[in-house]
Amino acid sequence: MLIRSVRPWGGELVDVLCVDGVIKQIGPDLVSDDVVDGRGGVLLPAFVDAHAHLDSTRLGLPFRPHTADATLAGLIENDRQNWRSAERSVADRATHTLGRTIAGGATRVRSHAQVDVDSGLEKLFGVLAARAAHADRADVQVVAFPQCGILREQGTVALLEEALRSGADLIGGLDPAGYDRDPVRHLDIVFELASKHQCGVDIHLHDSGSLGAFQVSLICERVAALGMQGQVTISHCFALPGEGLVSLLAEHDVAVTTVAPGNREPLPLRDLRWAGVRVGLGQDGIRDYWSPYGNGDMLDRTWQLAYRNGFRRDSDIEMCVDVATRGGAAVLGVESGLTEGSPADLVVVPGDSVAAAVMDRAPRTLVVHRGRVVAADGELV
Amino acid sequence: MLIRSVRPWGGELVDVLCVDGVIKQIGPDLVSDDVVDGRGGVLLPAFVDAHAHLDSTRLGLPFRPHTADATLAGLIENDRQNWRSAERSVADRATHTLGRTIAGGATRVRSHAQVDVDSGLEKLFGVLAARAAHADRADVQVVAFPQCGILREQGTVALLEEALRSGADLIGGLDPAGYDRDPVRHLDIVFELASKHQCGVDIHLHDSGSLGAFQVSLICERVAALGMQGQVTISHCFALPGEGLVSLLAEHDVAVTTVAPGNREPLPLRDLRWAGVRVGLGQDGIRDYWSPYGNGDMLDRTWQLAYRNGFRRDSDIEMCVDVATRGGAAVLGVESGLTEGSPADLVVVPGDSVAAAVMDRAPRTLVVHRGRVVAADGELV
Repeated sequence: MLIRSVRPWGGELVDVLCVDGVIKQIGPDLVSDDVVDGRGGVLLPAFVDAHAHLDSTRLGLPFRPHTADATLAGLIENDRQNWRSAERSVADRATHTLGRTIAGGATRVRSHAQVDVDSGLEKLFGVLAARAAHADRADVQVVAFPQCGILREQGTVALLEEALRSGADLIGGLDPAGYDRDPVRHLDIVFELASKHQCGVDIHLHDSGSLGAFQVSLICERVAALGMQGQVTISHCFALPGEGLVSLLAEHDVAVTTVAPGNREPLPLRDLRWAGVRVGLGQDGIRDYWSPYGNGDMLDRTWQLAYRNGFRRDSDIEMCVDVATRGGAAVLGVESGLTEGSPADLVVVPGDSVAAAVMDRAPRTLVVHRGRVVAADGELV
Repeated sequence: MLIRSVRPWGGELVDVLCVDGVIKQIGPDLVSDDVVDGRGGVLLPAFVDAHAHLDSTRLGLPFRPHTADATLAGLIENDRQNWRSAERSVADRATHTLGRTIAGGATRVRSHAQVDVDSGLEKLFGVLAARAAHADRADVQVVAFPQCGILREQGTVALLEEALRSGADLIGGLDPAGYDRDPVRHLDIVFELASKHQCGVDIHLHDSGSLGAFQVSLICERVAALGMQGQVTISHCFALPGEGLVSLLAEHDVAVTTVAPGNREPLPLRDLRWAGVRVGLGQDGIRDYWSPYGNGDMLDRTWQLAYRNGFRRDSDIEMCVDVATRGGAAVLGVESGLTEGSPADLVVVPGDSVAAAVMDRAPRTLVVHRGRVVAADGELV
């Protein structure tokens, strides 16, 4: 397939030939029988949603007033009280929102799926169903995520293990100290499961300050002991910047993801990237029982990352795009790029430049996954 | 004119009859020869952009990389070096962006117009031309704004005075201490001009901490001395919250506006409103030499205010809408409301509820100014 008339990273107008799911050739006036028109848009690597919660989304359903108090425990309880009464199944909801995410230009997604004694594996199966429904349009990693803690309710560990046997790709965790009250025991269980099932780890860490930093160091100790460099992600990681934490993460090749929250301090993006820490961007919950925000659009989230950081210079805004594309790919351990040989997972965005595309947030002209158009003009094909 | 099928503030479906520019009747099954369809959308008072810079906008022109350093002086100098080379005149640019602002649902706007020895009154005249071009669609207040300070360049005071004689409605100011280096002299000039020309005051105050608080108190002293309660606005007001400042503002009926900046602390909205301080929301610069952000959409800016504050509850998101509508109207000293007798300056937004409308940010179904439709489905009529 030939993508005619695009500007890679906002540069010169070229054509891009994709063969067997990779970029074969980039240049002017290429020819092919199978041509799609990029209409002069900015060509970017496809977005990567490195941190989603597809299992809880209510996007596309009637808007529901937010009913939780502001604590983590209150949010958890609010979800537990309400998710079963959703108008549609987890699978339907996750499938819809994953579709919107793909239409927005993200073809690689890492979604957490809540595993707890209330919902069992029902939410996991919903996310797996969404993944199957969009198998030709996106690659989805699923995290078995103990949203209600591991130690608080009897039976969670067995469920997490069952989740890993049932299709989850990674094992998750949640505030081992602040929420689950025993960081060592929590982390030992997480890393034991990772080791046993030879899978990656992606831990939610909202704990900040020295308690958060302590847990980052506990995680890194386990990474070193198990040789899991490159396989562990800390999501949110509000402990950053924190004395020495950036270099600790870099040393152990532990990745971080952010969802560009509105009222928490932004991650020190430049320092992290300068140190070589992989940083990805995610949507988090998408209009769900946790929050009314989110719309499936990773370009909108990229704008949010730039805005929250107060970035005005094009190079800084481009850094945000890099976080949302190649950065997330590095977190997920998948290839991404705009050179010959890169996977043909691409998005074409209208705009004068990369920064302009972020500011305009126009519907995506084309979304390409494995060399095939999967969405055009903001809608799935 | 009858607006059929709308839900005032997200409530029950009704019709709204507008006569002579005011809401005459609200109820089910009203009749009129002149009917427009609200399609069941949420009816809100029209948005008020309480703080815009229409003179600098480049919306609709080719995107221009940001070239300023991050200091106020650097931003000022960058604008001065570049604004004359814009592809279109100030009037054309301001007219375009004011049109987009109206199409987004704002029919009352307060725009600053830079007055300095470099540009003279050229920017003011551009904004006045935009106001004239949209005179039937929106009411625009114009502030004679000494963007480059009052004391730094000889001749500025005379220009400000000429601006007030030439159509500017209010006198502005800029960081009397932090930028202009002499808060008392700066403020004395501003309030003398206000007193002489019997006009309101709207001062940019980025100075924060105790220096900012000191200037708030200097402003309030002058408000008291001149009996200017209700006629003075402090824009940005980063000195807030600050010990005792909220009650000082309330006591002197000094209003504040915010532009919901991404990397400055949000204003203490609840405290301010609880104390009775008038608070408005504005777009600030709109894709200009100062910043690439802004798109003319006050609903998008309302979302930004909610997001930056971390608001999730519907009541908090509705408070942001109230700031962006009735709050701004109170700052500008104009009427606003959704009851019989309120001015028929209204906007219809698709959405299940007020909070949902903010989250969806869909194109406005209808925008009504003085009882006439001035925009529909996101475009000017």
